[in-house]
Amino acid sequence: MEKTNGVKRWNFGANEVVERSSSLSIRQYLETLMSNLGNDGRPVIPLGHGDPSPFPRFSTDPVAVQAICDSVRSTNFNNYSPASGIPIARKAVAEYLSRDLSYQISPNDVHITVGCLQAIEILISALATPGSNILLPRPTYPMYDSRASFSQLEVRYFDLLPEKGWDVDLHAVEALADDKTVAIVLINPCNPCGNVFSRQHLQKIAETACKLGILVIADEVYDHYAFGDKPFVSMAEFAEIVPIILLGAISKRWFVPGWRLGWMVSLDPHSIMKDSGFLQSLANVLGMSTDAATFIQGAIPDIIGNTKEEFFSSKLELVRECAEICYEEITKIPCITCPCKPEGSMFTMVKLNLSLLEDISDDLDFCYKLAKEESMIILPGRAVGLKNWLRITFAVELELLRDGFSRLNNFVQRHSKKQP
Amino acid sequence: MEKTNGVKRWNFGANEVVERSSSLSIRQYLETLMSNLGNDGRPVIPLGHGDPSPFPRFSTDPVAVQAICDSVRSTNFNNYSPASGIPIARKAVAEYLSRDLSYQISPNDVHITVGCLQAIEILISALATPGSNILLPRPTYPMYDSRASFSQLEVRYFDLLPEKGWDVDLHAVEALADDKTVAIVLINPCNPCGNVFSRQHLQKIAETACKLGILVIADEVYDHYAFGDKPFVSMAEFAEIVPIILLGAISKRWFVPGWRLGWMVSLDPHSIMKDSGFLQSLANVLGMSTDAATFIQGAIPDIIGNTKEEFFSSKLELVRECAEICYEEITKIPCITCPCKPEGSMFTMVKLNLSLLEDISDDLDFCYKLAKEESMIILPGRAVGLKNWLRITFAVELELLRDGFSRLNNFVQRHSKKQP
Repeated sequence: MEKTNGVKRWNFGANEVVERSSSLSIRQYLETLMSNLGNDGRPVIPLGHGDPSPFPRFSTDPVAVQAICDSVRSTNFNNYSPASGIPIARKAVAEYLSRDLSYQISPNDVHITVGCLQAIEILISALATPGSNILLPRPTYPMYDSRASFSQLEVRYFDLLPEKGWDVDLHAVEALADDKTVAIVLINPCNPCGNVFSRQHLQKIAETACKLGILVIADEVYDHYAFGDKPFVSMAEFAEIVPIILLGAISKRWFVPGWRLGWMVSLDPHSIMKDSGFLQSLANVLGMSTDAATFIQGAIPDIIGNTKEEFFSSKLELVRECAEICYEEITKIPCITCPCKPEGSMFTMVKLNLSLLEDISDDLDFCYKLAKEESMIILPGRAVGLKNWLRITFAVELELLRDGFSRLNNFVQRHSKKQP
Repeated sequence: MEKTNGVKRWNFGANEVVERSSSLSIRQYLETLMSNLGNDGRPVIPLGHGDPSPFPRFSTDPVAVQAICDSVRSTNFNNYSPASGIPIARKAVAEYLSRDLSYQISPNDVHITVGCLQAIEILISALATPGSNILLPRPTYPMYDSRASFSQLEVRYFDLLPEKGWDVDLHAVEALADDKTVAIVLINPCNPCGNVFSRQHLQKIAETACKLGILVIADEVYDHYAFGDKPFVSMAEFAEIVPIILLGAISKRWFVPGWRLGWMVSLDPHSIMKDSGFLQSLANVLGMSTDAATFIQGAIPDIIGNTKEEFFSSKLELVRECAEICYEEITKIPCITCPCKPEGSMFTMVKLNLSLLEDISDDLDFCYKLAKEESMIILPGRAVGLKNWLRITFAVELELLRDGFSRLNNFVQRHSKKQP
């Protein structure tokens, strides 16, 4: 196609839906901050994202590494995987999840995915019928927002209430939903808030969803990261009340987010999702999507079967210790407030009191200047939906965490309003 | 939401766009055929899909397995990957692809994907702007059709011409394109036709695409599978003429489709894709998509660096031998015709002459009855866009191939019209 003025015209270009959707990503904020680091030679303190796997104390269990080597050496798993995963992997995940439940999950209901993220991609695109909407928490894990926007699924936000331990504002949920609302997302233990939802509250959410006729997407990628008073309870316990899609992965509990092995489990004892046709649509999206590496799937029975409880409990204790230190250090800093002591996941949300600072305009400015002056990365709250808050990851080496708070203290002192 | 009649109404359901899109998949045809097998106790002859990895003679190189074990044991690759892949993987792929080119590909232009399929997913969704269309070959690799339909990108088909060695009908391409046409897909060596495009023909395709203002998607997942007279030439040689997105993977050449390691390379020496904003959109879709397992990426330098040329040449010779036998056997069967002796990929297309058969209504009926009566799987041509043709994979163990053709002969004799 030539334009009449002789300038070459090409038909392809930017995709506006993509541009709108991807502007929401944590990756983009972190990349911008990383490109804004000062060059004082100090190591970067990375409290911006939840991946402790590079730290020696958070190394994965050697039995998991051995399982991968055994699987790939067997040469039984070089071939294409079925769309929902290989049977031994589905069975192993079903049994693993059933350990802590009052019933058994069927392997047929387990679909293996390329990490939890691909489960989100597939689920959101299957839910995105014209005119429909989805309820997301605020603050949020923004990949839900990005993928919903990308699939042109309208997003409506309900608040998590800091004054109520980050519980869901159930009145808001009821007010937001209409007959085009297809689902509600709940992340438990909660990224980014660091709370764990109680059994009673989970049941209320399930009952509300049932009343509204919507399914519950229970993102439990941080399952078992509960180190406060409340035990972790899976939303799966309430599948009799409402249809549930459970998401999870080996990423967090085994400290191997790069292995990209997740799952999506449909809990539908009353055949509601099946009869509505939704489960078939979900299976069909899986059928035209890429799969988790077959030999990693082949290693799953050994990864799950050979990891001792001691590995999990010692790592959980380590994360608890990090959370304690993080909370203590936060209380010493006047311009940030942590409304709820973290009791789960690897994150906490703190509120920024800008009136105590003299040359910081907002959360983004705070994080930019912190990166520049102290080589320290914290995520601005706006990245997860709360402006003038900060999301802090505490799952790093203790020395780094202490060093980080010392830098944060220096930074805050330097920028505090001087007393008259 | 309660209906007034008291019947529970749920808001979610089937997704019609998904249903339309996934009806096109090879997986669905193969699953239907596999569920239709006779139970005569004979092993299944699987000539329906291209995955020779389970056969001992097509085992991957042990150095590739060793590279995986070394990578996962290093514990350097348990963390999240950057969106475009880890730098050493991008560099290794850039160097690998540049070996056979007249110029060097930059690692910055290489994006690692979860197999070639994820590259297709990402690329198609980035191209799918409202009202745009894409040109696909007929016959085709139907995942392009499925993903385009799923992304609501209109598909227009141009023919590959069996009477011209499956060359592209360039007149049709020009007639089909308009100013909303964004790209043309070419698979070389060709799945499903088994031909290899000549340098001259590739150049003509590039020139036509340039004239039309569209980019070329060069799917070279079967790169180097050229065992006839024509050498494999990469479309990358014509990047000076037209912007190219090159797709590939280690799946076929190393016989590890289940390792899910592919790439998408942008070749844009005149900054056309960059200036149009398309490359940024592509990067942004990558940024909200799952990644290839980091430790598999970490193994790529050793997989590529340690595999000897002898491994490739011996396997290519094996595939060539399979193709020869396949072609010879086809010529002995009256009711199927192979217009072009296979010279590349792992497939050939043969035309069914239904007038010679007495109780076979079409290609699907042929394949159903063949599965039922002979426990042999062949893909009906309609699955790749040509009704009353068949797609046959020849990359299997020689004994299976010979046994398969013996069964096919028996089947055809049994169903042939009796001579008067």
